[in-house]
Amino acid sequence: MRGLIDISELTIEEIEALMNTAEDIIENPQKYSESCKGKKLATLFFEPSTRTRLSFEAAMHELGGSVIGFSDGSNSSAVKGESIADTARVVGCYADIIAMRHFIEGAPFVADRNCVVPVINAGDGGHNHPTQTLADLLTIRRKKGDFSHLTVGFCGDLKYGRTVHSLCTALSRYKGVKFVFIAPKELRIPSYLVYEVLEKNGIEYVECDNLEEAMPTLDILYMTRVQGERFEDKAEYERLKDSYILTAEKLANAKSDMIVMHPLPRVNEISVEVDYDSRACYFKQVLNGKYMRMALILKLLSEAKQGISADAVRPKPISDDADGKHICQNPKCITHTEQELPQAFKCVDKSKNILRCKYCEARVK
Amino acid sequence: MRGLIDISELTIEEIEALMNTAEDIIENPQKYSESCKGKKLATLFFEPSTRTRLSFEAAMHELGGSVIGFSDGSNSSAVKGESIADTARVVGCYADIIAMRHFIEGAPFVADRNCVVPVINAGDGGHNHPTQTLADLLTIRRKKGDFSHLTVGFCGDLKYGRTVHSLCTALSRYKGVKFVFIAPKELRIPSYLVYEVLEKNGIEYVECDNLEEAMPTLDILYMTRVQGERFEDKAEYERLKDSYILTAEKLANAKSDMIVMHPLPRVNEISVEVDYDSRACYFKQVLNGKYMRMALILKLLSEAKQGISADAVRPKPISDDADGKHICQNPKCITHTEQELPQAFKCVDKSKNILRCKYCEARVK
Amino acid sequence: MRGLIDISELTIEEIEALMNTAEDIIENPQKYSESCKGKKLATLFFEPSTRTRLSFEAAMHELGGSVIGFSDGSNSSAVKGESIADTARVVGCYADIIAMRHFIEGAPFVADRNCVVPVINAGDGGHNHPTQTLADLLTIRRKKGDFSHLTVGFCGDLKYGRTVHSLCTALSRYKGVKFVFIAPKELRIPSYLVYEVLEKNGIEYVECDNLEEAMPTLDILYMTRVQGERFEDKAEYERLKDSYILTAEKLANAKSDMIVMHPLPRVNEISVEVDYDSRACYFKQVLNGKYMRMALILKLLSEAKQGISADAVRPKPISDDADGKHICQNPKCITHTEQELPQAFKCVDKSKNILRCKYCEARVK
Repeated sequence: MRGLIDISELTIEEIEALMNTAEDIIENPQKYSESCKGKKLATLFFEPSTRTRLSFEAAMHELGGSVIGFSDGSNSSAVKGESIADTARVVGCYADIIAMRHFIEGAPFVADRNCVVPVINAGDGGHNHPTQTLADLLTIRRKKGDFSHLTVGFCGDLKYGRTVHSLCTALSRYKGVKFVFIAPKELRIPSYLVYEVLEKNGIEYVECDNLEEAMPTLDILYMTRVQGERFEDKAEYERLKDSYILTAEKLANAKSDMIVMHPLPRVNEISVEVDYDSRACYFKQVLNGKYMRMALILKLLSEAKQGISADAVRPKPISDDADGKHICQNPKCITHTEQELPQAFKCVDKSKNILRCKYCEARVK
Repeated sequence: MRGLIDISELTIEEIEALMNTAEDIIENPQKYSESCKGKKLATLFFEPSTRTRLSFEAAMHELGGSVIGFSDGSNSSAVKGESIADTARVVGCYADIIAMRHFIEGAPFVADRNCVVPVINAGDGGHNHPTQTLADLLTIRRKKGDFSHLTVGFCGDLKYGRTVHSLCTALSRYKGVKFVFIAPKELRIPSYLVYEVLEKNGIEYVECDNLEEAMPTLDILYMTRVQGERFEDKAEYERLKDSYILTAEKLANAKSDMIVMHPLPRVNEISVEVDYDSRACYFKQVLNGKYMRMALILKLLSEAKQGISADAVRPKPISDDADGKHICQNPKCITHTEQELPQAFKCVDKSKNILRCKYCEARVK
Repeated sequence: MRGLIDISELTIEEIEALMNTAEDIIENPQKYSESCKGKKLATLFFEPSTRTRLSFEAAMHELGGSVIGFSDGSNSSAVKGESIADTARVVGCYADIIAMRHFIEGAPFVADRNCVVPVINAGDGGHNHPTQTLADLLTIRRKKGDFSHLTVGFCGDLKYGRTVHSLCTALSRYKGVKFVFIAPKELRIPSYLVYEVLEKNGIEYVECDNLEEAMPTLDILYMTRVQGERFEDKAEYERLKDSYILTAEKLANAKSDMIVMHPLPRVNEISVEVDYDSRACYFKQVLNGKYMRMALILKLLSEAKQGISADAVRPKPISDDADGKHICQNPKCITHTEQELPQAFKCVDKSKNILRCKYCEARVK
């Protein structure tokens, strides 16, 4: 079934419609309180994530539906060696829609393609987490009105932060958006993002390593955590670390209508005193995430209702675009763990012949 | 309270009625969508089993009820040394019906006898798992119309497979059923089953070790997993192992209306390509399991409503049929772990004076 | 928000009203079966406790509400280093009321003060567990009519048993209550309780170490578990241990209307045969606990509905009463683990200048 695996599967219009639904839910919660009556969401969390799981569960309950699932894969049939495809088919007998989090990249994609009910990717390793991006987008729209001509600063760990990559990709579709990437050199934005997203779309961007200098130019400051252990050069870390902790003092240089975002959980990268500043929006992201998940569940269940056919019970194999010469080299990719799963690739740039794995999007050398 | 601990507690007529209810639910789900409104199921899973637990939970939700419970005994009061009887009495204050899975054999039996609400055995060690058998029976009836004169092949690990023992016992009550037991010699059907079930009821059966030879004669092929580590003779395993993996090729010899069953999860004992064959019924078993659990919950709650009396709050002791000379020798039996639990036995064959433990059914030497 | 952290936050009148509500629920469950429709309880159990968690969840379901949460902190965002305050703020976006159990003393207090929804303390380490006390109080009132002029025996581990401390404190507000503390010398009632609660309020009490001698004088016998490992003097333990196991024989000396209570789980401190004695009330405590939690949820949600304001989304800092000279010495206190949390103390006795930590109530030296 068609679920949501990657934010790029949604058109700008679809995202717009989801945000409109979310805002309607915020204003008229009663109108939606029985929308999913008799429907069940399964939360299959092979990797713990309380925040995301509770958000999905709250979303389903607020739509009048119910929830089954697990919060820790060590209690699931997977420990008996069951494939993701089989798990998805089985749970498709119990639930109307599935939210899956998995440490294996591509797992929700394989689940979705083998299941009669839609599967939402609730995070697959370091790969995708589209509902976090939906939460971020609604938070920006509610504060800024629209996405055009914003200067967006991303600060901290820009190398490994999948929420950064995903929001950056999503925002790059809007007119006149500018990015400021504030990171130590060890944690700079990956070059594939620069090439495949920014330069390809002609997006203006700057890279720097000092938050205070960048501050006055920003409409949005998206903070992420910088972990000391990521640095090879410890002296560099000591020099920079305070620069990446947001304090009330540093906010003095910011625009009065700038917004501060963070995907949470934070550890100490934003001082608690900043919580009392009206520009702090990270707890609003949490609320908005719930509403966007409600909108998404409604959309997918509505599409499933129209599209389901009796013979959909038979899984459809993923078409095999492999040329027989390549295999995915990402050790976390599902092609290495799933029984009888064909290699499959897509060409993302014909001029340079860049191939990416269809499951985990790792580039094939 | 009277729950369901062992499939043999149900008469043929009761099983028939459960299947009729299940089929009515399949055709008229709306009719049942509020049947358990205000009722609560507790899923007490001292041993993880996602599939079975989610099936029970989905069943209760589809009846309009709600669910409480745990998925892993390491988080329960049992770690503080609480007895099964006390746990059952406590949970009987919170829920209207209980589904219990436990690694201790006889635990759901003791729970049921000490609790004011019915307890369903959702698997107790290697002992019983009656709702899997109910799922299997409905799957067969929906495909074959009835149970008479079927030739049923069981393939794989017939020694330890409790689903095989239970289904075999249940089917042996029907007229003209024949069994073909396909297993390596290390994993043959246990002699007690041959003696106490098959020979006692005059059932025709064959034992062999080759799936392909047996294939053309079968109406039903029930696959189970063969684990290499069960074999003493590794050369024997190498010779046989491919024989026990079901492939599309091997199905070529089968009847066109044969059905392939498996209790799941599978690892590699059925090739994924078989999923696309219309004879594959293992995902149908999953669906049917949910519907039979719905039917069972309805039956037990309805009986509880009629039978409950105020003084049922006081637990009734299990009558002590012990002669004082015997104690159960099964190390997994609950008599070895539960506080102040009397030994109790039943005589299953008077001529040979075969005694079995009332809790775990292990034979007393 | 105002939740319930410590039983002493409730006035006698509030407790009376909660018990009246609970009794009304017992008599008219239907009247309350939709009271919390559309409301969500979050059960945040950082430390496992099946009994308490299931009681809260059953309570919410019987009020027509739904439940989200986790049963084990090792699956929560806390493992990523998130503060209690942040967790509470996030979950406050998902649920209408929170029940929190935590091994850190003061954690539910900090959660409640940082959250827009009320937080109920479901046990914080060895500190407080107010809903157990509410269950105990209802059990006594339903059996004894009121609390005046009762002779209450506490038996077993009176040093570490927080349920004993809490019930003792709660009962000391009623007229003519007498206490008999039956404990080995290693496990005697703490001196702070004797001084701050009993002597301050002029309560009559006796200490002894023999249950059988005390038995005939008691209206209530509250049993707790004595663990061998608590004793320094093993010979002393051997001499006393049988004295602390309640048997049918020992009950022969008790009043015919005495009631036996126990917070459960028991291990072997009450013989199973006592369960059949009509004076045994420990399973009634379980039921009453559920009803008192229902009453409490109703009360707190109703107060929240009246009191909530839009700007409550901003957490209010706990006022800092620290003199700068003291820091809490309790290693389990939340002041040692939570980010940017000020020290705060209250003076509980001006004449002796006794200061206690506002979070964990440990005495400051």
